[in-house]
Amino acid sequence: MISPKTRSEADTVGDAMHALIAELYPICRSITGDGFRATLDIIRRRIPLQVHEVPSGTRVFDWTVPLEWNIRDAYVKNAEGARVIDFRKHNLHVVNYSMPVHATITLDQLKPHLHTLPDHPDWIPYRTSYYKEYWGFCLTHNELLKLRPGDYEVCVDSTLVPRSLTYAEYYLPGETKDEVLVSCHACHPSLANDNLSGIAVASELAARLTSRPHRLSYRFLFVPVTIGSITWLALNEDTVRNVKHGLVLTCVGDSGAFTYKKSQCGSAEIDRAVAYVLKKKGNPHRVIDFHPYGYDERQYCSPGFNLPVGCLMRSQHGTFPEYHTSADDLDFVKPQGLEESLEIVEKALQLLDCNRRYVNQNPKCEPQLGKRGIYQGLAGMPDQKRYELAMLWVLNQSDGQHSLLDVTERSGLPFDLIRRAADALEKHDLLKSI
Amino acid sequence: MISPKTRSEADTVGDAMHALIAELYPICRSITGDGFRATLDIIRRRIPLQVHEVPSGTRVFDWTVPLEWNIRDAYVKNAEGARVIDFRKHNLHVVNYSMPVHATITLDQLKPHLHTLPDHPDWIPYRTSYYKEYWGFCLTHNELLKLRPGDYEVCVDSTLVPRSLTYAEYYLPGETKDEVLVSCHACHPSLANDNLSGIAVASELAARLTSRPHRLSYRFLFVPVTIGSITWLALNEDTVRNVKHGLVLTCVGDSGAFTYKKSQCGSAEIDRAVAYVLKKKGNPHRVIDFHPYGYDERQYCSPGFNLPVGCLMRSQHGTFPEYHTSADDLDFVKPQGLEESLEIVEKALQLLDCNRRYVNQNPKCEPQLGKRGIYQGLAGMPDQKRYELAMLWVLNQSDGQHSLLDVTERSGLPFDLIRRAADALEKHDLLKSI
Amino acid sequence: MISPKTRSEADTVGDAMHALIAELYPICRSITGDGFRATLDIIRRRIPLQVHEVPSGTRVFDWTVPLEWNIRDAYVKNAEGARVIDFRKHNLHVVNYSMPVHATITLDQLKPHLHTLPDHPDWIPYRTSYYKEYWGFCLTHNELLKLRPGDYEVCVDSTLVPRSLTYAEYYLPGETKDEVLVSCHACHPSLANDNLSGIAVASELAARLTSRPHRLSYRFLFVPVTIGSITWLALNEDTVRNVKHGLVLTCVGDSGAFTYKKSQCGSAEIDRAVAYVLKKKGNPHRVIDFHPYGYDERQYCSPGFNLPVGCLMRSQHGTFPEYHTSADDLDFVKPQGLEESLEIVEKALQLLDCNRRYVNQNPKCEPQLGKRGIYQGLAGMPDQKRYELAMLWVLNQSDGQHSLLDVTERSGLPFDLIRRAADALEKHDLLKSI
Repeated sequence: MISPKTRSEADTVGDAMHALIAELYPICRSITGDGFRATLDIIRRRIPLQVHEVPSGTRVFDWTVPLEWNIRDAYVKNAEGARVIDFRKHNLHVVNYSMPVHATITLDQLKPHLHTLPDHPDWIPYRTSYYKEYWGFCLTHNELLKLRPGDYEVCVDSTLVPRSLTYAEYYLPGETKDEVLVSCHACHPSLANDNLSGIAVASELAARLTSRPHRLSYRFLFVPVTIGSITWLALNEDTVRNVKHGLVLTCVGDSGAFTYKKSQCGSAEIDRAVAYVLKKKGNPHRVIDFHPYGYDERQYCSPGFNLPVGCLMRSQHGTFPEYHTSADDLDFVKPQGLEESLEIVEKALQLLDCNRRYVNQNPKCEPQLGKRGIYQGLAGMPDQKRYELAMLWVLNQSDGQHSLLDVTERSGLPFDLIRRAADALEKHDLLKSI
Repeated sequence: MISPKTRSEADTVGDAMHALIAELYPICRSITGDGFRATLDIIRRRIPLQVHEVPSGTRVFDWTVPLEWNIRDAYVKNAEGARVIDFRKHNLHVVNYSMPVHATITLDQLKPHLHTLPDHPDWIPYRTSYYKEYWGFCLTHNELLKLRPGDYEVCVDSTLVPRSLTYAEYYLPGETKDEVLVSCHACHPSLANDNLSGIAVASELAARLTSRPHRLSYRFLFVPVTIGSITWLALNEDTVRNVKHGLVLTCVGDSGAFTYKKSQCGSAEIDRAVAYVLKKKGNPHRVIDFHPYGYDERQYCSPGFNLPVGCLMRSQHGTFPEYHTSADDLDFVKPQGLEESLEIVEKALQLLDCNRRYVNQNPKCEPQLGKRGIYQGLAGMPDQKRYELAMLWVLNQSDGQHSLLDVTERSGLPFDLIRRAADALEKHDLLKSI
Repeated sequence: MISPKTRSEADTVGDAMHALIAELYPICRSITGDGFRATLDIIRRRIPLQVHEVPSGTRVFDWTVPLEWNIRDAYVKNAEGARVIDFRKHNLHVVNYSMPVHATITLDQLKPHLHTLPDHPDWIPYRTSYYKEYWGFCLTHNELLKLRPGDYEVCVDSTLVPRSLTYAEYYLPGETKDEVLVSCHACHPSLANDNLSGIAVASELAARLTSRPHRLSYRFLFVPVTIGSITWLALNEDTVRNVKHGLVLTCVGDSGAFTYKKSQCGSAEIDRAVAYVLKKKGNPHRVIDFHPYGYDERQYCSPGFNLPVGCLMRSQHGTFPEYHTSADDLDFVKPQGLEESLEIVEKALQLLDCNRRYVNQNPKCEPQLGKRGIYQGLAGMPDQKRYELAMLWVLNQSDGQHSLLDVTERSGLPFDLIRRAADALEKHDLLKSI
């Protein structure tokens, strides 16, 4: 007999993030509508969100904000009146953004509206039709095989009306207007890794940063995929100039190796920071080049913006079989997976927050560190020699051009040691940050 | 019994080029003289050449156009009056540019004027003495061993008189004055690979380009080696500015692996285009760095011009034993070898012709491709997914800085696919070429 | 029976350098004082030094010239009056810069002032206390173990008084003010490799350069480590601007593989020259990146100067067990080791002296070398072909941007051949140096 989790076990941050995912999982989200709003209502219990409603029909660059979609019910009933496909059982049963329909049709007429995964006959696929008028149902392949010829009553009780697209942001001002953008899409229904995991990690991160001093400003975006980031960019062209680093978070809850997809530039500070943290932590991981396919980094890295925004994933979208199916469920994401992702992102952002450039205030020859007593606190420190070396590296490289990450990469010493050395030198007026 | 070639076999372009080589092979060419003119007369049956005559004595940079050399006959007769060396049997028997001589001398006096190849005792070497007054004969080593002591009558019935140096060019104007220079030397007598093969491939290429729309202008040069390219450069300093890409074609008819020698710059568009085409085609090949030894690329890449001119060969000059001997004959060059070379050059020039830079007309976020119906024609195309990806790459990279070859190299997608994507996007006004 | 060295054996330059080291070895040097002056007196027998005295208390950037230290005697006597530690037996027995003391104390009181090497129980360590008031003794660990409890008379008969810091320089003017700095520390007592070897190689090199024509100017510095180079930099900020290349010489007498530590810049001419010479000579060697720990290159490469100064060693300081112990003695350095080091430095500086940039005076196409008779002297030269190629490379690359070392690296030809080619071309007015 397995005893229920004790309070202390449930207390890990991984469990807390998983609990948030479990709470959000049953909601039927889409790129517009009340499911998206309900999702934000839950997130804002943790962090104070600013929610924006953008009217349907608003032009955002080459796109137009679509009609708002909501759904009450959807089913296919057989001749006996039994629901053979029932939206109430799983949100994925209806093609997302299906237009309303109510009719009785034959199985042959129904089939072009049914979607299954023959290779995974027990999984329901996730399908959408945002920008083409259509209705449809998704079901397991085994269910499909059970359908007998005959008449079927199909019903999609949805509405598509001019109202608005919803997105939320949480802006956390720092000492400087330079900001870090953390973006995640929040529009997928009942898919745990893609992207409730991103929502959970971003929310937890935002809450932590709120209670901690920080130099940079941070902006968290919870947006519908594609149209949401495009809308935000279109309505915030001035703000965009402040974005110095950015991360799209998605599929960060599974147990796979980390995948970091670099920004278009490929050598942005965020690219080097995440690569450094992944390498330092030692988890299996890959750092891959940018390609213009994926999530909202496509929009942030479009040539008119070309923001330094990368994308952190564990298993890469499209490369794991559970992707965009009912198998991307609450079992597929793990507290430990979420917790490791949080740690990577947190460390990378901390690094950026500390990654200043300094000017050596005594640039001609080394300063006499001994007379300042800088060494004295060190006696007996296990890494005293390396700490001294870190100070010499920081002094040598601090010409105003090299950041602490540059010094880290060149010296091969840990970033934290380099940062501690810089702090000590700054305290003794030997360095000045720029 | 082997039946004669049927008409259709002879019809391949490789056979046609080989037939041209066979027709040119017997002519005794040199850097000046009637053999060069006769060669041009045959080439101009295929393409309309503009022939230039540059008077002997003309200063061309550090050089002077030499006296014109022509030869009627040359022989060495033994005491019995038999021709033991006979120019009428092979053009290579006389040292090219031998001054006239008629005398009877002993074998010992003759020997300093005889050249053989002891390592290849049945081959006649090719020797020249353009800029030093000299006469001499070349023969097989086995023939040399048969010569008995005694008197020999030597005769070189040649003339060296002030007249002119001949070269030809064929200029094919395109939409832009930016031009591609295709240069080959046409002065070697009875050597098939070096460089009747270059003449054959260049002529065929010129004929094909004539009947095809093209953006760039093309200039084909048929020149005597060294002094010819120097003369052209000296007389056309204004035109030189238009040369944006160039290729020297030589030794392109044998069966060896391809060798591409890069321009001095080393990363010119022509260098990357030829390397891409060779790699894509998959034939064995090497891409080697520039060195200031070889053919007329030496002159084009001299620091006062530094033109982006590379050199395409199959076997590299000086590295195959048949080089500059009578074994570089009509059997040494193959229709298939010529045809493959033509294909490489043609594809590389096509690539350059299409290799434009574009500016994304909707640079902020991706354009909504779906609403434009760009995807519609694609359904069922085997490479639909890759074609979509190609469009996203072109859009993402089209900041006016990156050419389609840049996008090809970065994306890893085929150039043709990238170009098709760019064409489609341009047609929908999403791209504008610069 | 081993016979004494004959005169001719002793005549090698390696033996001569070893003999200089043997003469300097017994002197008790420090960063100030008469030992340093006595050392310079011996060096100036070979080369004319300019000796500078800088008063104690002089501010040099962040540092202050310390009190001058001299020592007459030092010992520890046991209760029986026997010298159990005796400075007269080895200079290393006293901690360098020990303050004067004369007292009778117990073994327990003495112990914090004793330094040994338990891992090498027969070696005496080398310890200093330049900038902290202290006195102490160094002895072998085996000697320490023999000390019995009881009273000990300790005596350091030293003086620490305001007088001056001594350093010397030898400036050898060339055709240009651009200078090469050769720096070695001359303050270590009775340590042969660190750094009497550096003194010996630098002195010999200076003597040789004196009797040889040279384009660059040379400056040899014999300074106390750290404070000496800082003092020189502080007093010569104008001169520093002329330093175009520099080398710190240390630990160049042992038999280990060469270690070249690059300047901070990492791709300075000196870095490439030394790397080329080491590779060409073929001795085992490593070229390592700069790090801000080591000898006076730390000061020369500080960001306020950032001079192109590397450091040549054989075994790297801190990596061989004899380092900073009595085992770094006259047996540890070898005539052959010194001689090889001299050769490397000499060749690297010769290379720099010849490493000019040229402008091709006939940049458009190749000049006609034949008519100038440049080739004529070459007939029969074993490397005639390579020499011709060297001329073509020099002509091709001489656009005023590329030095002869650039041409060497690109062509793969030896520097000496490239230089000879450049000399010949310059003599024929085909090149002009800039």
